[in-house]
Amino acid sequence: MESRQLKQVRIGLCGLGTVGAGTVNILQNNLAEITARSGCNVSITHIGARRENPLCNTGSIKISSDIFAVADDANVDILIELIGGTDAAYELVKRAIANGKHVVTANKALIAKHGNELFALAHTKGVTIAFEAAVAGGIPIIKALREGLAANRIEWLAGIINGTSNFILTEMRDKGRAFDDVLQEAQALGYAEVDPTFDVGGMDAGHKLVILASIAFGMPLNLDALNCEGITDIQPDDVRYAEELGYRIKSLGIARRTANGIELRVHPTLIPAKRLIANVHGVMNAILVKGNAVGPTLYYGPGAGSLPTASSVVADIIDIARSLDVPLAQRVPYLGVPNDQLKAQPILPMSEVETAYYLRMSAHDKPGVLSKIAQILSDAGISIEALIQKEPQEGHHQVPLIILTNRTLEKKMNAAVAQIEALNTIEGKISRMRVESLEG
Amino acid sequence: MESRQLKQVRIGLCGLGTVGAGTVNILQNNLAEITARSGCNVSITHIGARRENPLCNTGSIKISSDIFAVADDANVDILIELIGGTDAAYELVKRAIANGKHVVTANKALIAKHGNELFALAHTKGVTIAFEAAVAGGIPIIKALREGLAANRIEWLAGIINGTSNFILTEMRDKGRAFDDVLQEAQALGYAEVDPTFDVGGMDAGHKLVILASIAFGMPLNLDALNCEGITDIQPDDVRYAEELGYRIKSLGIARRTANGIELRVHPTLIPAKRLIANVHGVMNAILVKGNAVGPTLYYGPGAGSLPTASSVVADIIDIARSLDVPLAQRVPYLGVPNDQLKAQPILPMSEVETAYYLRMSAHDKPGVLSKIAQILSDAGISIEALIQKEPQEGHHQVPLIILTNRTLEKKMNAAVAQIEALNTIEGKISRMRVESLEG
Repeated sequence: MESRQLKQVRIGLCGLGTVGAGTVNILQNNLAEITARSGCNVSITHIGARRENPLCNTGSIKISSDIFAVADDANVDILIELIGGTDAAYELVKRAIANGKHVVTANKALIAKHGNELFALAHTKGVTIAFEAAVAGGIPIIKALREGLAANRIEWLAGIINGTSNFILTEMRDKGRAFDDVLQEAQALGYAEVDPTFDVGGMDAGHKLVILASIAFGMPLNLDALNCEGITDIQPDDVRYAEELGYRIKSLGIARRTANGIELRVHPTLIPAKRLIANVHGVMNAILVKGNAVGPTLYYGPGAGSLPTASSVVADIIDIARSLDVPLAQRVPYLGVPNDQLKAQPILPMSEVETAYYLRMSAHDKPGVLSKIAQILSDAGISIEALIQKEPQEGHHQVPLIILTNRTLEKKMNAAVAQIEALNTIEGKISRMRVESLEG
Repeated sequence: MESRQLKQVRIGLCGLGTVGAGTVNILQNNLAEITARSGCNVSITHIGARRENPLCNTGSIKISSDIFAVADDANVDILIELIGGTDAAYELVKRAIANGKHVVTANKALIAKHGNELFALAHTKGVTIAFEAAVAGGIPIIKALREGLAANRIEWLAGIINGTSNFILTEMRDKGRAFDDVLQEAQALGYAEVDPTFDVGGMDAGHKLVILASIAFGMPLNLDALNCEGITDIQPDDVRYAEELGYRIKSLGIARRTANGIELRVHPTLIPAKRLIANVHGVMNAILVKGNAVGPTLYYGPGAGSLPTASSVVADIIDIARSLDVPLAQRVPYLGVPNDQLKAQPILPMSEVETAYYLRMSAHDKPGVLSKIAQILSDAGISIEALIQKEPQEGHHQVPLIILTNRTLEKKMNAAVAQIEALNTIEGKISRMRVESLEG
């Protein structure tokens, strides 16, 4: 096949930051592979960016400072949205759709927040919106979930989908460091943003989880119902005690189908140290998916970065280029099932979520304290699965008391914790974290 | 979308063994998901099997004892080949292709051995051959490699792709058991065949590796050039010493692109215990893929079994059903690039493969023995990275000597080993295994 016979596919690239530069570099460096695999001559014809990025060479490609000029360019077949945020990006994608262009985006916030509307618009115009790069960077998890596991009824998924949080937790465990200390290093290394709230507060993972859950359960995107807790309150003591109990603390995004509704939650979680996903370290991401036919499968790789994220952007480009004129009905639907087949499902409030618990409290070193606590838990129908009580440090009257419970509803645990905290033999607040066995 | 509007897609299923029964069960139990995701009414219209399987309910589906009747049935759009072997299966698939039917198969041996011919035939008839289930059971690794990582130049891949071997090695490590002992248990549990040669000899993994390598490197299937060694010679001592050195022994299928050609090899391998893939236990499979853009990614899940393997069969059915009439040029090519773009590449003989080595020998407990060995290795340009020398057991004059070397060409190691074995201070043969760092 000679190159003059190849179909020309023209890319308009908006945003020339980290991922934009990576996309330019991959399209140049891996051109032979991309041409062979897509069967097309894929080339960037128009870039929308305020400035050049020294990390890539745009050569003679037309550059407009107005990104909307790219969306309006008749010489663009596929618009790549890599500007981020949900304001201009939202308007840009709408404009591209209105102009009948396919869209590829790495923007998790845009999809989680505006996906339902954008998919509806795209459907009326018969164009694709592809967003593999929006979740877990270079890991092809959207494709795995939407196509590779399409034969399954998905029961649950649990993912380490924020590299910054996982880096911090890994350092805390490996080196016994404190949260603030590691966060500062992560910021210096460029892993964490200057405002790290989205990462360590769980919302970044939350956006990704909302997208994964919609595909897993065939329901519209539901960002409003997301339950989200960060890792900022985890103490080095918690990391150490978890280890002692045979667990590791990971910030997980969890989506689970239950008889009463869907669980949709991001929070620090104790998981058994022997699970493969407990051994995912540093900035790496991994998603564990349980299907009713396949059982457990796991997908691991870099969750961020210029080339890894651009790897997913370009994979989406290849998919679209190969089948540029195939009607929508014969393509994979945006969320795995056609828009009109998505079924809204109730999302459980956290009070109705059932998990096991890790509790850490500071108790007076006196007879009868433990029996009182055990009585409160027992009255609430909560049993103690494991317990660590340490001797008091010299000159102290408090002892740390660590309890692992069986599974219980969060509202029951809330009530029990309030009762325990009200005991005059307990100092201050109880630290608690949810525990998941992640059994396949 | 009401069901009467749905396109009918008619499945002919040949083979009603473990995977066949799983396919019937998934198509029944997950019908709602499969209908929504494919946009089609997918139903089995004809089964070719010598007998019913009590593990599934075929209801009123027509059953023929002659599988070729299914391939000739005008009421079949997609033929599913699950009979195994490379004789009747080969004829069956050719017949189905000749009749213009798409084919889905779980048959790794068939694809590895006859894939080049079958893909050429399928191309002339404009039909698809899908084979996700042929490699690593329920893990969607074909889709990940062929589509998800399509933007990458693949540098190497390494997979635990034989569950029986991994089960045996896991038991040997966890419980200090001997190979034969565990093999017998695996046979009793049904993990290993009565004739386990294909599993523990490495050929089962070899078939899968040949398929993965062709997709990774865009080359025709090349079963003849495969290098294959089994796990039958591994001693409990090796497992223990590897552990002591910070390594685990895994049977890996490895394909790597080098300046001189492609490495294509299955053999027991020492890998660092801290790697995620070193923590894949029991019958589970995992494949680590290194792309030049994405870096390292890993895919983990059940590599065999009724429902896991059928999960991949049905995923292929959904892919084909959704796009039943899409022309081949707009589908994903069989091996990732069109047949006429595949490029044959030289496969390195093992003598030209470079790896690090683990050596275990029995040496006389005398001065000067170690220096002699070190001299031979040094003269061959091989340096010692780690060494364990144990005290002799009481009443013995031999001591076990374990050496980890740096990377060297196999032919150089062969020559050095022959020289060391010729020393009159060395008893018997040297046990050796290759060592891979699998660094991302």
